[in-house]
Amino acid sequence: MSTEPADKQRLDPRDDVRGRSRVQDTPELRAYYDELAKHSTLAFWTRANDIEPWEPQTRYVPTLWPYRTMRDLVLRSADLVDPARAGRRVVVLINDSDAGRHYTAACGWLFSGLQVMRPGEITPAHRHTASAHRFIMEGAGAYTVVDGHRITLEKHDYVLTPNGCWHDHGVTADGKTSIWQDGLDIPLMNILETNFYEVYPEEAQQRQYPENDSPRTWGGAPGLLPSRLEQWQAPWSPLMVYRWRDVRPALVEFSSVQKPDPFDGHIMRYSNPLSGGWAMKTLGAQMQLLPAGFEGAAHRHTGNVVYNVAEGRGYTQVGDHRFEWSEHDVFCVPSWTWHRHVNLDSKAPAFLFSFNDFPVVESLGTYVEQPEGSDHGKSAF
Amino acid sequence: MSTEPADKQRLDPRDDVRGRSRVQDTPELRAYYDELAKHSTLAFWTRANDIEPWEPQTRYVPTLWPYRTMRDLVLRSADLVDPARAGRRVVVLINDSDAGRHYTAACGWLFSGLQVMRPGEITPAHRHTASAHRFIMEGAGAYTVVDGHRITLEKHDYVLTPNGCWHDHGVTADGKTSIWQDGLDIPLMNILETNFYEVYPEEAQQRQYPENDSPRTWGGAPGLLPSRLEQWQAPWSPLMVYRWRDVRPALVEFSSVQKPDPFDGHIMRYSNPLSGGWAMKTLGAQMQLLPAGFEGAAHRHTGNVVYNVAEGRGYTQVGDHRFEWSEHDVFCVPSWTWHRHVNLDSKAPAFLFSFNDFPVVESLGTYVEQPEGSDHGKSAF
Amino acid sequence: MSTEPADKQRLDPRDDVRGRSRVQDTPELRAYYDELAKHSTLAFWTRANDIEPWEPQTRYVPTLWPYRTMRDLVLRSADLVDPARAGRRVVVLINDSDAGRHYTAACGWLFSGLQVMRPGEITPAHRHTASAHRFIMEGAGAYTVVDGHRITLEKHDYVLTPNGCWHDHGVTADGKTSIWQDGLDIPLMNILETNFYEVYPEEAQQRQYPENDSPRTWGGAPGLLPSRLEQWQAPWSPLMVYRWRDVRPALVEFSSVQKPDPFDGHIMRYSNPLSGGWAMKTLGAQMQLLPAGFEGAAHRHTGNVVYNVAEGRGYTQVGDHRFEWSEHDVFCVPSWTWHRHVNLDSKAPAFLFSFNDFPVVESLGTYVEQPEGSDHGKSAF
Amino acid sequence: MSTEPADKQRLDPRDDVRGRSRVQDTPELRAYYDELAKHSTLAFWTRANDIEPWEPQTRYVPTLWPYRTMRDLVLRSADLVDPARAGRRVVVLINDSDAGRHYTAACGWLFSGLQVMRPGEITPAHRHTASAHRFIMEGAGAYTVVDGHRITLEKHDYVLTPNGCWHDHGVTADGKTSIWQDGLDIPLMNILETNFYEVYPEEAQQRQYPENDSPRTWGGAPGLLPSRLEQWQAPWSPLMVYRWRDVRPALVEFSSVQKPDPFDGHIMRYSNPLSGGWAMKTLGAQMQLLPAGFEGAAHRHTGNVVYNVAEGRGYTQVGDHRFEWSEHDVFCVPSWTWHRHVNLDSKAPAFLFSFNDFPVVESLGTYVEQPEGSDHGKSAF
Repeated sequence: MSTEPADKQRLDPRDDVRGRSRVQDTPELRAYYDELAKHSTLAFWTRANDIEPWEPQTRYVPTLWPYRTMRDLVLRSADLVDPARAGRRVVVLINDSDAGRHYTAACGWLFSGLQVMRPGEITPAHRHTASAHRFIMEGAGAYTVVDGHRITLEKHDYVLTPNGCWHDHGVTADGKTSIWQDGLDIPLMNILETNFYEVYPEEAQQRQYPENDSPRTWGGAPGLLPSRLEQWQAPWSPLMVYRWRDVRPALVEFSSVQKPDPFDGHIMRYSNPLSGGWAMKTLGAQMQLLPAGFEGAAHRHTGNVVYNVAEGRGYTQVGDHRFEWSEHDVFCVPSWTWHRHVNLDSKAPAFLFSFNDFPVVESLGTYVEQPEGSDHGKSAF
Repeated sequence: MSTEPADKQRLDPRDDVRGRSRVQDTPELRAYYDELAKHSTLAFWTRANDIEPWEPQTRYVPTLWPYRTMRDLVLRSADLVDPARAGRRVVVLINDSDAGRHYTAACGWLFSGLQVMRPGEITPAHRHTASAHRFIMEGAGAYTVVDGHRITLEKHDYVLTPNGCWHDHGVTADGKTSIWQDGLDIPLMNILETNFYEVYPEEAQQRQYPENDSPRTWGGAPGLLPSRLEQWQAPWSPLMVYRWRDVRPALVEFSSVQKPDPFDGHIMRYSNPLSGGWAMKTLGAQMQLLPAGFEGAAHRHTGNVVYNVAEGRGYTQVGDHRFEWSEHDVFCVPSWTWHRHVNLDSKAPAFLFSFNDFPVVESLGTYVEQPEGSDHGKSAF
Repeated sequence: MSTEPADKQRLDPRDDVRGRSRVQDTPELRAYYDELAKHSTLAFWTRANDIEPWEPQTRYVPTLWPYRTMRDLVLRSADLVDPARAGRRVVVLINDSDAGRHYTAACGWLFSGLQVMRPGEITPAHRHTASAHRFIMEGAGAYTVVDGHRITLEKHDYVLTPNGCWHDHGVTADGKTSIWQDGLDIPLMNILETNFYEVYPEEAQQRQYPENDSPRTWGGAPGLLPSRLEQWQAPWSPLMVYRWRDVRPALVEFSSVQKPDPFDGHIMRYSNPLSGGWAMKTLGAQMQLLPAGFEGAAHRHTGNVVYNVAEGRGYTQVGDHRFEWSEHDVFCVPSWTWHRHVNLDSKAPAFLFSFNDFPVVESLGTYVEQPEGSDHGKSAF
Repeated sequence: MSTEPADKQRLDPRDDVRGRSRVQDTPELRAYYDELAKHSTLAFWTRANDIEPWEPQTRYVPTLWPYRTMRDLVLRSADLVDPARAGRRVVVLINDSDAGRHYTAACGWLFSGLQVMRPGEITPAHRHTASAHRFIMEGAGAYTVVDGHRITLEKHDYVLTPNGCWHDHGVTADGKTSIWQDGLDIPLMNILETNFYEVYPEEAQQRQYPENDSPRTWGGAPGLLPSRLEQWQAPWSPLMVYRWRDVRPALVEFSSVQKPDPFDGHIMRYSNPLSGGWAMKTLGAQMQLLPAGFEGAAHRHTGNVVYNVAEGRGYTQVGDHRFEWSEHDVFCVPSWTWHRHVNLDSKAPAFLFSFNDFPVVESLGTYVEQPEGSDHGKSAF
């Protein structure tokens, strides 16, 4: 969205039609505009074409964060600051654009960073309106405590920290230095002016439940739920961790009985088993399997996505950028940007973890998708 | 509910209060009642106390069907009739009461029977408004085909045949004679006068999807769902089979982190992963683990339950009946009847499969539960 | 549903197909059947065709209750019994069939009766699991108190008494003898064995809210709701009365901009403004306008309906019965029975109030409708 | 949210606690920060306290737009431009802040403007992702056509133009110059990068339905809905206009039986009669009655509100601003800003129309409210 002064509104020839603003400047109008400005107003037709674009125009650019670089940077942070003073020791991924820098965003309203923890360290307990989730990349002995529920974390597990829940993290003394990717909706919560923060009275929460009670209660078997559902009233998933040791074979099985989607291969969402919807109200996450040699078709859609390569090698074309990727590289696809995925390995599948703002876009009724080759001039409605 | 003539309405001393009918017979009233009868009417106060009881009075009696007897009976049926002519070779469990015989019901609105199939046999394909499900008891090589989805069945798997779905069953030629328990809502569908039936144009359906596509698509990992949910619009669960090999360890895990319920030990429901609700709209099913030596408290509730012992030995007190049970014994608990479960094994847990009409009772807003020892005179509302 | 002994199952030539039971009697089978009966079992194939009919076979018959007769009968009850001893002074409408008499039902699971109250009388306060509603037919000064909400009632108003709500009724001393039609789901609650009853500690409830607070809070203007919805959590409508002075003109407006439905003319439902669904979970009600001279097409559907003529004259063909009706005549249409409505007045519209069990049939997923002339052999699924 | 460089992060003494970032600058860290910047990253602890504020900090300021000024300005626009070239002749209300000017916003994500139309004029038909609604302020003969439904508009009516619906407006030749207030979610749709726009192939839509079919079908009587609900599948209200002639008396009735809310007097929402929720997914609207002499208590909440005085005179304290208001003055209350309303008329009620972004804030689970005098230090969670 342009922030040009009203009288310099862009003149797109496509706008010279009935139903668009086509008012010519005159001295009288200029005087009128000056008068309006004095009264906290402006003339709609001087801004209309700008604020009602023919289609969305993203302010974000496709950006790649290669893991071999990121890993070095985040490990260095462990030498430079301690988590007690840093709050959290995170290297934030900043979209390579003015908007990214302004909103501290990886893409759209998605915040992301790589966090590192050494054996024996803990991050101080706190909570915030912003929702968070994490995708474990490497290490051993990591855990998180969410509202008193302690959850152990292994490579490629996906874990939730829903909005308003107390949380602290750590790595056990006998563990290994651990790195994970954080995803949060901080930019959205700030832009909506609804972000609160609170520190816990102690450094860490006491565990209030048996270890891993969340997955052992809610994640035992597909479709099997405790009969006393009144145990859970929160709007987010009671299943707070999704194990890679379950998810990977599930995707392989899924891919053995279903045709691949032309754009995304075999793609599944982490969902709330009590509702079938996204696990949280503002952040979604998915895991997809690109079959060996998969060459996806291009499409674009509203909503933003940040990817983390779980396994394999390939490339994703995002607008004009071709991002070659291998394990743990991170890249993003901004709203309404054409993109397609290719698995460059002809023998083995690739796995892409990704997270997104689809729960927001869908709940507001504004998800739009366009496959490549569909009539370009056709309405998006 | 009594079917006595109006003038013989029962006289319960408890009814001699304001708000109950307490009209004395008179010659004028008798003449009036006769007149009413001529016009397809009657006087409310001659029936009121009877049709508005202080609390539900079940017409069903607690009944036990021991498997050692049932197994012989159902295996004999395999010698006596062939499935093509019998439609389905099922020994129906009839509640030991007038109501059970009248409505062909095991308990309340629940139909149940034991079905046997020999290697190489199939039952002809058909469909009906009544919903069905099955709990596999013994055998090998059994399968069902539901609306073109072929599902293989192993011991203690639980499988759905939702209302209106085409279905046929069989045992492969290299399998073993198989016995399962059918559960259906036939009495409810008949009493609601909404039961339709249709035979398939051919003996068996062609498989339209890869084998076991339902569990491989929807049952891969807890909380993991295909991202394209528009694949499934039906009101029942797309996950049509729940595997014992998943369910048993899930219950063991669950029991390791949760306190047992005083009445039911550790109890979980088979649910629709797209909604978190019951898998079907009229029939519910649960599996429960009674810890070693568990001595449950008594309670009663509206709704009817039929149990099948999956594993272990113990007894259940149902009203005045004490049912000692071991593997595959079937017994029922009628609506609003006191009952408690005891695991007689001090070393090993017991597992009880059960099915019920709770989805109906709950969706109509009429589920009521009372624990033993709570104030008996207190309102059930 | 037949209650014939198993060996006398009806032999319908249509049943001589694969997928239906076609087992011939033999001495061995007879011996087997005797053995089964000893163990609370029976052979499915001896009952299958009977309990799985090709289509629903209602046990109820179309019945008409002419108001000129009913009015006399119900007024006589006011001379014969007083409400304090009768509980409620109601002439119950009994379907002219064994089922109607057995279940005290007007049609299907619907109970109905005409209640009369004289000026100054009250009925003692009580509550029950059964839900109730009332359609006011004549009089002045009638009121009801539902859980402390006092509601005044005028001719053709429709008022709720949801399940479990305390209620008492009366007519003010300066009013006129009042007659209304009660509708309840008593037969359903009894057959589900979930019916509780309780008397109020005093004869009448104290009003806890301003008079008519329910319609004045929730029924002020279409689509306008109190912003603090947390005021209402019950599963039934907070709007407990629907005024004829609003409903009649609304239907006239509606009919002026919509084409009539071929079967029902212009038909609207009394709904819960918080959900758009039926006002209660087990009982539905509608009001329909048949345009002057309307000749409806025939259809049939599952679910039962009881009509009360609010205005006009015409006839309804129900199966083999032609019911000519005028104001306040009551008649019923049993499940899956062909019926069509005709307005015999060529100048004025007719208005039919009706209530039904559609909320039950719909929530269980078993509503089926068939228009006349559609392929009779076609599946109802 | 500050856009200061990372090394100038604000230093709030409240932040000197465990759980907040408290890292001191060092040369090594500065070098590290420079390195991070080269790789599209930054150190979380240099921004953390800024992007995770203790509580929301709005970028908007309370602003008042007095009608006597606005009316003159908008009427002048009618002399200066014609609607065919202007698209829509709207004076946009711009929040008196950088954010307001940047996002073309009245407050938060709410766009608003005053639109004027002369007799015989029409605005060209178009549609957009942004949802719109209008509150009629003066004139006669105005109408809108929404997806072929023509709706006539009178003073203080509230009318919807849901997202993606074709719409054009006009004033009939025999009408009077009309002014209304537009409300849209344009800033939100742009910031989410999901805003599409399309012009209609002709200047105006043909009416496809009888005039006012929407209110005559869906707005006849409270709680009365067409029985064939399958007529309406859209996620917004089928009732597209709420008449002042219905709404005003409804509020007066409501206020006669309910106690006033301490903050808002008697407040009701325009809702979707099919769901009881807000009429659209992104924009909400309410009408409230402040009793004669009402002196409201102060509270604050997340979410933004724009008010238009429908009737009466009084003032609203918003943060440090005291806005005295009378008919048709417009003012706003930004997110998490203390405010209270006072009716200065001791004889007559005042009526405030308002619209808001509560549907967004609520659907994302981030609505927080704090009454004045509650423990200020207490958690907002």
